[in-house]
Amino acid sequence: MPLPPSVPIPGPISGPISGRTRLYAVLGDPIAQAKAPALLNRLFAANGVDAVLVPVHAPADRLDEVVRGLKAVANLDGLLVTVPHKLAMCGHADELSEAAALLGSTNALRREPDGRWYGDNFDGAGFVRGLAAAGHHPAGLRVALAGAGGAGLAIAAALLTEGAAALTVTDPDPDRINALLDRLGPHWPGRVTAAPHPPSDIDLAINATPLGLTPTDPLPFDPAPLSPGTLVADIIMTPPETPLLRTATTLGLATHPGIHMLTEQLPLYRSFFRLPG
Amino acid sequence: MPLPPSVPIPGPISGPISGRTRLYAVLGDPIAQAKAPALLNRLFAANGVDAVLVPVHAPADRLDEVVRGLKAVANLDGLLVTVPHKLAMCGHADELSEAAALLGSTNALRREPDGRWYGDNFDGAGFVRGLAAAGHHPAGLRVALAGAGGAGLAIAAALLTEGAAALTVTDPDPDRINALLDRLGPHWPGRVTAAPHPPSDIDLAINATPLGLTPTDPLPFDPAPLSPGTLVADIIMTPPETPLLRTATTLGLATHPGIHMLTEQLPLYRSFFRLPG
Repeated sequence: MPLPPSVPIPGPISGPISGRTRLYAVLGDPIAQAKAPALLNRLFAANGVDAVLVPVHAPADRLDEVVRGLKAVANLDGLLVTVPHKLAMCGHADELSEAAALLGSTNALRREPDGRWYGDNFDGAGFVRGLAAAGHHPAGLRVALAGAGGAGLAIAAALLTEGAAALTVTDPDPDRINALLDRLGPHWPGRVTAAPHPPSDIDLAINATPLGLTPTDPLPFDPAPLSPGTLVADIIMTPPETPLLRTATTLGLATHPGIHMLTEQLPLYRSFFRLPG
Repeated sequence: MPLPPSVPIPGPISGPISGRTRLYAVLGDPIAQAKAPALLNRLFAANGVDAVLVPVHAPADRLDEVVRGLKAVANLDGLLVTVPHKLAMCGHADELSEAAALLGSTNALRREPDGRWYGDNFDGAGFVRGLAAAGHHPAGLRVALAGAGGAGLAIAAALLTEGAAALTVTDPDPDRINALLDRLGPHWPGRVTAAPHPPSDIDLAINATPLGLTPTDPLPFDPAPLSPGTLVADIIMTPPETPLLRTATTLGLATHPGIHMLTEQLPLYRSFFRLPG
């Protein structure tokens, strides 16, 4: 397995909070698992930004109230979004990036100087940056993707945007598969297909399902039939070495762990929120 | 001038914030001057509480939206309140303490286990605790109070509650004076009066006006006529030694600086928010 990614996250955990500190929030339900506070507060501190990101547990049936309230907070500059609010938050953006509009999903919103809210989605871009940082450029790759949920959709769109040659999606839920094909097919005709199992003659196989979070989970797919040069990637961050990645390593396949997808979003957030550094 | 008060505020400025961190907010307009984040976050850290208090700039005309939103945040346990929202926030409490109800003003609200919001006011109690910590017990004291605004009202009520013998209030605004007399007179008949200047035969003279925040401010009252044993107190925290206190010291009078009022609220908040330690 590669070492942790090259993006440095130095500096203190968080600086002192004063009345002048700017606010950011990450919205989710639940929120205890959110890694954004640890990462973004390190980013703020490392760049000398007097800001803090706090976890906001917004129950699904009260999301609208929470967001209206946070938008009325004059020193709040941005929002990150995690499960299950990424779709609903599109309705709270005044404008969406191409990626967010294509996915129907936003994981980052910022207040513009004119007061409007602009939403983007960096899940897929973070994954692609993580691949590239590890020397794997998506252009021309043949990809198998397990999981057609929100993360899978974002990753599929980002890989196709960056020139992936062909993408085969597996998911036990035909509705999710069809939703993904309906959304991406028109943009990349003939390059996205569904299959019951990953094809063996591919360059990159990705797990974008939750399988692997729990030790007793079955593998999201069997890596044994994959050709020797295939890279096996996971988006699960805990544990860092999932059973899928361990099995792939045992088979002699190269692997790519989930943490890259998150840490490689940091430079994107820094730019999106117009932070210095 | 006495040394800073005895309440220890040790420990790190703030701990790392994770998805499990509980939230508190201080509401104000403006908010940049708020000292609550620095003090409360030290209190959390010193007591091993995984919580953070953040400054929330709630513009006066959007306070209701902000509070409705914050109440819908499931991991938010409490609110502190500063100028100008202490009166309006009474309307957002389901129940008020005796002190808050008497003052018509709340500076601290907590979420009860049943979800209701309970409001209290510790401004006056903090001042009285600060006096007592410096060896000045209010029982039996004759007091002159300059300033019949929110802070003056809270201090007056707390001093009378603790047995101050008589309280003379000065304020250039007759409406503020009358509002204070109307509110406190029925509770402590004959013990609260108004006057154009502090009487000279008193034990304690307090500035509860903003005069002294700006170097060019006139003194809130002239301490020269006060009897030699009079204690002169200020609620202004910046600068620590106001022109009033400097003048009083020059006259040989004992003084009591503003920081006590705030730091002595910390144990009250710890108890109110049911923090360990």
